[in-house]
Amino acid sequence: MAFSNIRIVLVGTTHPGNIGAAARAMKNMYLSRLCLVDPQRFPDAEATSRASGADDVLAAASVCATLEEALSGCSLVLGASARLRTIAWPQVDVREGGCLALGHAQSGGEVALVFGREHSGLTNEELERCNFLMHIPSNPEYSSLNLAAAVQVAAYEVMMAAGAPHPEAGPEGGEPLATADELHNFYGHLEETLVEIGFLDPANPRLLMRRLRRLFNRVRLERTEINILRGILTETQKRARRS
Amino acid sequence: MAFSNIRIVLVGTTHPGNIGAAARAMKNMYLSRLCLVDPQRFPDAEATSRASGADDVLAAASVCATLEEALSGCSLVLGASARLRTIAWPQVDVREGGCLALGHAQSGGEVALVFGREHSGLTNEELERCNFLMHIPSNPEYSSLNLAAAVQVAAYEVMMAAGAPHPEAGPEGGEPLATADELHNFYGHLEETLVEIGFLDPANPRLLMRRLRRLFNRVRLERTEINILRGILTETQKRARRS
Repeated sequence: MAFSNIRIVLVGTTHPGNIGAAARAMKNMYLSRLCLVDPQRFPDAEATSRASGADDVLAAASVCATLEEALSGCSLVLGASARLRTIAWPQVDVREGGCLALGHAQSGGEVALVFGREHSGLTNEELERCNFLMHIPSNPEYSSLNLAAAVQVAAYEVMMAAGAPHPEAGPEGGEPLATADELHNFYGHLEETLVEIGFLDPANPRLLMRRLRRLFNRVRLERTEINILRGILTETQKRARRS
Repeated sequence: MAFSNIRIVLVGTTHPGNIGAAARAMKNMYLSRLCLVDPQRFPDAEATSRASGADDVLAAASVCATLEEALSGCSLVLGASARLRTIAWPQVDVREGGCLALGHAQSGGEVALVFGREHSGLTNEELERCNFLMHIPSNPEYSSLNLAAAVQVAAYEVMMAAGAPHPEAGPEGGEPLATADELHNFYGHLEETLVEIGFLDPANPRLLMRRLRRLFNRVRLERTEINILRGILTETQKRARRS
């Protein structure tokens, strides 16, 4: 069942009431996998009360120390965000995001929809872990939705996407995509290599790694492609170490 | 402005927090006219707190004794309801409802979206005042949305019917894309470098370059990105030539 491949990840939630309300919003729309990254208070009576009949979702929620852990196994990550400050990032609106998420889940991939802190959202570093930023269209003069309301709209769009017939999975053409962990290791390897060949100065990295992440997140790399790229990096390192 | 012809009517709301959260949900989606029919507690500090920055919507809310009063002047009334118990009534889903509401408002009519009590919804007598029942698709085993969450989804669909304000950036983020020549030169440079570091054997190239072209064609590289990638290749060549 596609819905079970989709997890909702709440990062650094301050108010336990929002966690409970998000659980209820999820269950209304067939979603049941909730991951909490470093919640301020959880479990909490207010979360249980706001969850109403969705206490099963709360009880099954996993609590993670890091976003990385929460994204383990995911090959499509959508981050709810108003905007990334220093660099443009691939962006979809929540309706497109719901279609992407459902399509990917239907073809067997693991999907995460990530929501940030009530007041400050997601950090740039967290956003860089996302393939797409997902934007809920709203009044630009008052654009910040309540956290659980944002989860409600996103979950609703995922469910509505299940009602509409779907164009088959896009750019990946059926080959298995790299998971978030594989991507993370690739970026580590890439950074290390760029330092070794002298292209990246660790003392003055500027936005280089962010730009490269933006590029490779956008392409949604297949596992085979990651292996080729890492093969190139390994060969490059051998040469650099001999020079 | 069409949005100002649309009012949200909350009937017999029990929890003032839901009134505040509904006000916030409305303002996020350009709606500002809130009518409360016989609310249990209003005004109330919890409503104000949950309204966040939408206290102007709360302050301007009208409080009515009866639904009839709240619907005064309306020529289209949509009643949010899970099910109608004893009578069949024209029914739309919330997406159709958003389109109907906006269309009617754009042609100058007054529209009400009516939401019932947290636990018991709208009575049959109240539903009979509606032109349509408006249904939010959801998990039939757990179909009751929180009141403010239901207002959020309905207000969102009204706004989407108006044509969601679109974030400027497409997937490529608005920066100029590389031309075909630039891409061609990049592939030439990439191939040359892969030969120099010994990763590509010109006598037995297999499908390597085709795979890499497939990857980088898919991403639709920006000009700046091509420049970064070629910078990395140049640095790699320097190292390889020294080794």
